Amino acid sequence: MSYRLGELADLVCGEVVGNPDYLIQSLSTLDAATPVQLSFLANPKYANQLKTTNAGAVLIKDASLVSSQGNAIVVGNPYLAFATITKHFERDTSIFSKSDSDRVSPDARIAKSATIGVDCVIEPNVIVGENVVLEDRCYLGAGTVLSRNVKVGEGTRTFPNVTVYHDVELGKNCIVHSGAVIGSDGFGFALSKNGWVKFHQIGSVEVGNNVEIGANTTIDRGALENTKIGHGVKIDNQVQIAHNVVIGDNSAIAGCAAVAGSTTIGKNCTIAGGVGIVGHLTITDNVHITAMTLVSKSINKSGSYSSGTGVDTTDKWRRSAARFRRIDDMAKQISELEKQVKKLLIEG
Amino acid sequence: MSYRLGELADLVCGEVVGNPDYLIQSLSTLDAATPVQLSFLANPKYANQLKTTNAGAVLIKDASLVSSQGNAIVVGNPYLAFATITKHFERDTSIFSKSDSDRVSPDARIAKSATIGVDCVIEPNVIVGENVVLEDRCYLGAGTVLSRNVKVGEGTRTFPNVTVYHDVELGKNCIVHSGAVIGSDGFGFALSKNGWVKFHQIGSVEVGNNVEIGANTTIDRGALENTKIGHGVKIDNQVQIAHNVVIGDNSAIAGCAAVAGSTTIGKNCTIAGGVGIVGHLTITDNVHITAMTLVSKSINKSGSYSSGTGVDTTDKWRRSAARFRRIDDMAKQISELEKQVKKLLIEG
Amino acid sequence: MSYRLGELADLVCGEVVGNPDYLIQSLSTLDAATPVQLSFLANPKYANQLKTTNAGAVLIKDASLVSSQGNAIVVGNPYLAFATITKHFERDTSIFSKSDSDRVSPDARIAKSATIGVDCVIEPNVIVGENVVLEDRCYLGAGTVLSRNVKVGEGTRTFPNVTVYHDVELGKNCIVHSGAVIGSDGFGFALSKNGWVKFHQIGSVEVGNNVEIGANTTIDRGALENTKIGHGVKIDNQVQIAHNVVIGDNSAIAGCAAVAGSTTIGKNCTIAGGVGIVGHLTITDNVHITAMTLVSKSINKSGSYSSGTGVDTTDKWRRSAARFRRIDDMAKQISELEKQVKKLLIEG
Repeated sequence: MSYRLGELADLVCGEVVGNPDYLIQSLSTLDAATPVQLSFLANPKYANQLKTTNAGAVLIKDASLVSSQGNAIVVGNPYLAFATITKHFERDTSIFSKSDSDRVSPDARIAKSATIGVDCVIEPNVIVGENVVLEDRCYLGAGTVLSRNVKVGEGTRTFPNVTVYHDVELGKNCIVHSGAVIGSDGFGFALSKNGWVKFHQIGSVEVGNNVEIGANTTIDRGALENTKIGHGVKIDNQVQIAHNVVIGDNSAIAGCAAVAGSTTIGKNCTIAGGVGIVGHLTITDNVHITAMTLVSKSINKSGSYSSGTGVDTTDKWRRSAARFRRIDDMAKQISELEKQVKKLLIEG
Repeated sequence: MSYRLGELADLVCGEVVGNPDYLIQSLSTLDAATPVQLSFLANPKYANQLKTTNAGAVLIKDASLVSSQGNAIVVGNPYLAFATITKHFERDTSIFSKSDSDRVSPDARIAKSATIGVDCVIEPNVIVGENVVLEDRCYLGAGTVLSRNVKVGEGTRTFPNVTVYHDVELGKNCIVHSGAVIGSDGFGFALSKNGWVKFHQIGSVEVGNNVEIGANTTIDRGALENTKIGHGVKIDNQVQIAHNVVIGDNSAIAGCAAVAGSTTIGKNCTIAGGVGIVGHLTITDNVHITAMTLVSKSINKSGSYSSGTGVDTTDKWRRSAARFRRIDDMAKQISELEKQVKKLLIEG
Repeated sequence: MSYRLGELADLVCGEVVGNPDYLIQSLSTLDAATPVQLSFLANPKYANQLKTTNAGAVLIKDASLVSSQGNAIVVGNPYLAFATITKHFERDTSIFSKSDSDRVSPDARIAKSATIGVDCVIEPNVIVGENVVLEDRCYLGAGTVLSRNVKVGEGTRTFPNVTVYHDVELGKNCIVHSGAVIGSDGFGFALSKNGWVKFHQIGSVEVGNNVEIGANTTIDRGALENTKIGHGVKIDNQVQIAHNVVIGDNSAIAGCAAVAGSTTIGKNCTIAGGVGIVGHLTITDNVHITAMTLVSKSINKSGSYSSGTGVDTTDKWRRSAARFRRIDDMAKQISELEKQVKKLLIEG
């Protein structure tokens, strides 16, 4: 796996500075790169690393920063260009080497009523249920379970041990990581005198195209209508999406975030790690939520939102937290003082 | 799957208003319903939706709200009645269609010492270990692993890829969703000069009857005695229950909540999403904890409890968080002001 | 499984008080122990339980606390000694009883290019990919998937349904619990006009020796360099470790904590449950973080750190949270009051 610098430049419509025949064997950070590696400078504040890096070449925006002996690819957005190039250096992610004849493992269990597109790879111990439809070039990792009536769009891949419940639809070119569960029952119960009565979840889940779903993430099926994940949505590990949530196109949700039932999130939102969004809210487009914020009301205006308190030493924090419990009293003391001082000033 | 309105009314001891022979084919919300669907009005504040809904019939408490041409089932608790009816509209959740002869997949691996009750369904790639006892009418989803000595009560179902460790006991009519892990080791170590020494977890887990356990939820086995989940407890996705936790009957725990070791939670509690409860606490019956609260002390009085701060724009929040760090100083400033003003008032 | 008290004392270099031939059949707490059980007193504040316990013997530091008829093992650190002894009372955790001839299940699927050490146990439905190297005495639980090029050190065990992605290296004597996913893609994307472009994650994960990884925990592979987990690190359930995180030796991370990308955590740190640590930070050695704290800046000094607010009744908390939103105004009011009062005092 090695490429001439000129080939890589062509992949990202960049311009070579230096030797276009220079051979790049792998990718690295400026800090750790060796002369056979390509690196990138995305943030101008790290420009001084250009002087010390051993990288064989760099992706860069400003050609004037390249040293006279250096090799570079000049592009408008070096980080985007570098990401684009990573695809060409990915390692082999298949579990078993395959000849054309054994793309579908004899150790997979596939219902006769299922439809399997061309060039699909199905690893061992995969379960494909009744009436499942796999479009062309799907890749199902070992131990993946697709229950009855699941539809999987062209080019979609599941890594090992993914579970998809009945009737769920996944779009094209999605990636679903190991341990993810899509279509499990939403958490719905009605209280009776004898305890909780299950509200059977008869909706399903619709996942758009180009969606990535992280390891051990869970997306519940809708109670009556479907839970919906828009096109281009990126979801990290251990995210919980409850029933009837709707997520707009190209929103990204980081690890351990949770969205409660029937909440709608707009397009191009970025939800940081550990965020909680309570149920039945509406979050508009282009909203950013910082880490571990609890969103307890709808957000109608794009922008950045936060909650919580800053980290402190435990001793100092303990005093602050104790005061927080009495902050209402403090506010009342201030009001009383203002009245008294006003009186003194007038009388004075 | 269609029912006459009168049949559905009988299921919930309700009274038909309108045409008892009206055919209902599925269920929906008032908003989205079509004339072949049954909906419900649980919250009177949505009563105006009755005028615009296209639902063929509604479950309702107050018969006087039904229009003269409308069909309805009148019941005391429409939401509970609707939940009861959902069971009859559930889709087929089995992965493979089965004849009576292949309820137990030849692709399951079952120890000879295991006992399998009548009418059990065991899907492919299930593992049933030594001495496991499955009571009648259990359903094990594909890839489920029941380790040595596990006991599963009558009518309990696991969805695919559930893991149950050795010696765990599940009650009757439980539902365990995909990716759940029951009986993993509690997090117990003793510090030695050479690092952590494992406290082997020799207790187990007891799960009561009618318990639901969400996708990717984890319940650890006890260190010495057992972790215990009461009857009728409902646990959502990605909940973490640590070793030796005891949860009282009919409590419900929403997604991503975590209960640390040796904590006891009472009956009929409702723990919202993302809540953390630290170890060795006692929470009494009928306690409600709001989303993402950290419970760091025992709760002896039923009621609702919270912690955290409200969401704000990040700019404004940053100023508030900075002030929070100095709230103890603020309180001291107020005290000093009070002294000075008191002096001025007296001298005045 | 029963031991003479003298045998157990030898395991922990302890001194027997009472009858060294007394037979111990199992372990328990002081509270619940019966005469055939060994218990321990680690915390002197529970010394009064020695008078009421029915334990057959106790592990204890202070021999003078043992009653004249009692049996005890006197050791310097009773909790550490008890933990050491738990290993000898662990139940059988294998799913199937094995003869020497069937340690490797015929229902496992193992690549011919894989290398399997001596005395390995491989349960049914395990997948071992191309070029995998298993050192001696490894134990792979049912349904475990080891992808291409994975290396597993001597004596390491996976419980059922663990997934390890390609090229990951696990050290010696590790324990990986069910549902854990190691080596899934880090969450990396570059924004383009057409949405997110995947930054393919071409690094891997290196896990040291004596590491324990909890159920449903996820550890992402590095973007370019490797994610690294030090020796002796203990990770609880549902922990999320993002790409390029480095965790120092003997640190312990409790359930549902999350560490964002490229953060480095020192040695001997203890991270409590539900903690979030944002990306690109450095946490020094010997840092303790309390439950559900958000760490948003680097920590250069060892000690204990916290954030958040204390739990309160929801009514009272609502007032506090509302005041928190206006805490900046409160601080300004105080400043204004101080100015006015100062003026009054001078003028007075």
